[in-house]
Amino acid sequence: MGDSPRESFGGEVSSLVEQAKDLQEAAASLISRTSREEDALRQRAASLDSRINSLRSSKHDDTLEDELVRARYVLSEGDAAAYLPSKSHGRFLRMFLGAINVRANRKDVQLKVKEEYNNFRDRTSYLFLFFPSLLLVLRSWMWEGCLPALPVQLYQAWLLYLYTGLALRENILRVNGSDIRPCRDFHNFLFRLHLCRWIKHHYCAMAMALISLTWETERGPDCAQKQCRVIKSKMVVQRGVELFLRWAIMQGVAMILQNRYQRQRLYTRIALGKARRMDVVWGETAGVEGQLLLLCPILFVLQGFEAYVGVLLLKTALSGFSPDWQVITCGILFIIMAVGNFANTVQTLATKSKVKAKIRKGKSRQELNSGSEGKSL
Amino acid sequence: MGDSPRESFGGEVSSLVEQAKDLQEAAASLISRTSREEDALRQRAASLDSRINSLRSSKHDDTLEDELVRARYVLSEGDAAAYLPSKSHGRFLRMFLGAINVRANRKDVQLKVKEEYNNFRDRTSYLFLFFPSLLLVLRSWMWEGCLPALPVQLYQAWLLYLYTGLALRENILRVNGSDIRPCRDFHNFLFRLHLCRWIKHHYCAMAMALISLTWETERGPDCAQKQCRVIKSKMVVQRGVELFLRWAIMQGVAMILQNRYQRQRLYTRIALGKARRMDVVWGETAGVEGQLLLLCPILFVLQGFEAYVGVLLLKTALSGFSPDWQVITCGILFIIMAVGNFANTVQTLATKSKVKAKIRKGKSRQELNSGSEGKSL
Repeated sequence: MGDSPRESFGGEVSSLVEQAKDLQEAAASLISRTSREEDALRQRAASLDSRINSLRSSKHDDTLEDELVRARYVLSEGDAAAYLPSKSHGRFLRMFLGAINVRANRKDVQLKVKEEYNNFRDRTSYLFLFFPSLLLVLRSWMWEGCLPALPVQLYQAWLLYLYTGLALRENILRVNGSDIRPCRDFHNFLFRLHLCRWIKHHYCAMAMALISLTWETERGPDCAQKQCRVIKSKMVVQRGVELFLRWAIMQGVAMILQNRYQRQRLYTRIALGKARRMDVVWGETAGVEGQLLLLCPILFVLQGFEAYVGVLLLKTALSGFSPDWQVITCGILFIIMAVGNFANTVQTLATKSKVKAKIRKGKSRQELNSGSEGKSL
Repeated sequence: MGDSPRESFGGEVSSLVEQAKDLQEAAASLISRTSREEDALRQRAASLDSRINSLRSSKHDDTLEDELVRARYVLSEGDAAAYLPSKSHGRFLRMFLGAINVRANRKDVQLKVKEEYNNFRDRTSYLFLFFPSLLLVLRSWMWEGCLPALPVQLYQAWLLYLYTGLALRENILRVNGSDIRPCRDFHNFLFRLHLCRWIKHHYCAMAMALISLTWETERGPDCAQKQCRVIKSKMVVQRGVELFLRWAIMQGVAMILQNRYQRQRLYTRIALGKARRMDVVWGETAGVEGQLLLLCPILFVLQGFEAYVGVLLLKTALSGFSPDWQVITCGILFIIMAVGNFANTVQTLATKSKVKAKIRKGKSRQELNSGSEGKSL
């Protein structure tokens, strides 16, 4: 009787209810205990941070300065960084997501974020190459040398999504990777420089995708009187879209190469683990130096082409009867991106050789850190 | 000599370095300890969850079923929910942000997310009312009855940003508020229904803003031969934009009213604290019932107008020589949103009176929970 299925069922069910209650209590106590301990750490970190800052602002000699840099380094580079007064997530994330926390405390989660970002870049860079190639191929095979509006607009809408997604992910990555500094892991420092560059680049690209969505637009309902302007301006737009697509194909190739370079470094680092970080960096550098030699000229050619497309856009727009503001703005944005990219590539290479030279000279970690801090912030 | 400023400085600096090291160790130990304990809780939660599921799928009588619902309720409604196998964040968040965690464990943080969302809605709803009003006023005062492309496109770009931001925030809110169920806090249940509705609404609205950015487009470079089509189609677009702006003004008024209603409820709940939640709900309902009576007719009128705008757009597009796909698609989207909104408002009201009736009958919590679970998931 006592072993009837109903009763054994009943026993199991009430044990489940008990277990659920226990679990609930354990969870509540863990959350409240952790919150308490975190708040305490936060207070300690904040007061220590402000004392270091106030001491650093007063004048003193180099040895003490080095010590202070060391204290700051310990505080901001390790796990304690999670409890420092939270740095702003940046305007962009606040604009789109509001005031939520996207920073992970655990290192493995932070690394997963980076891995996911790399995967996203990988997947999309092939599409980035594929879509414009498809449009150009269809243009000569099916559309008789002329690009219809709808496929181009779909492509531009995809670009807008892509750049928004990239800018959001990169900002999240920046928040999560803000504790990676040059002397700990030199390649991560380069990665961050690279990241800041890409974030700005993607803001420009977002603006451009948005503007190009409105490209083939005439002003107001009075275009009937300005018929020739319409045709002229259509041709300007057709030429502009074609230039844009050509540039996108080159950009796609460069993205795929850059991704391969980045991934190879990340995998090497994961494979070798955290031990002997400096060696790892050198091991990596030796392994991929060849790829960098290939990547650099491609990047410079791409930047040159970017500027060329920008100038061509400006020329076609200004030689036409009706200078479309969209074409002019896109031209200017192209030139800005080209100049910015060029300056950043040069800066990255310069920093790279400077940091290398410093490491070779065997200077102390602290000096290196204080020297490059301005740039890495 | 021992009290020279340099030495006291030195003493303070080295104490700072020590403190930084201590803090770093404390942080590292807290993070690793918490991770360990969280992993343990996660395992317990996962196994309990799967056992409850497997028992619920086998047949048994109502009492045991109630007990199981209760176990599930304890597990998924309290703090333990944070350690359940994480529900997917949804395609939309994954598309834009990747696989980061946006769920806060602490209730106060979750409440802050909600508060921030309300603030965002508040701020933007005034702009939502202001921009189209400004465009319509300038149209009759300065632009002689005709809307120029650039200001309209700027407004449409803002709409695209607004709807993307809202959809992202609402998805984050959904992830954070997924442990709020009807019988614990009835108004939160309504809020969630409301949220699901808004998320879908905002996906449609995003699509519409994107499409409307390409509205004033002609197809290909051959528009010279089809001059009358161009003028006709321009007029369709002008009429379409005007209808859209009128609808946006009404929508803005409704948003402001809805926000006031939502905020009032939130503030009441915060003011009264967590104690005696059921009473709080009744107190709130009494206080804002009048506002709901005002809100409902406005919502219905708005939905009617939405459908009307949709039909008008379709009519103007189809009566024109060149039926622009953009105008047709926007018309269809308007009608879909109107029907969806109407169905959801009716459903919300129906659920509301049903839940009220259930509570009045004094039925048990469990029954209520199991009854409304299908809808709230």
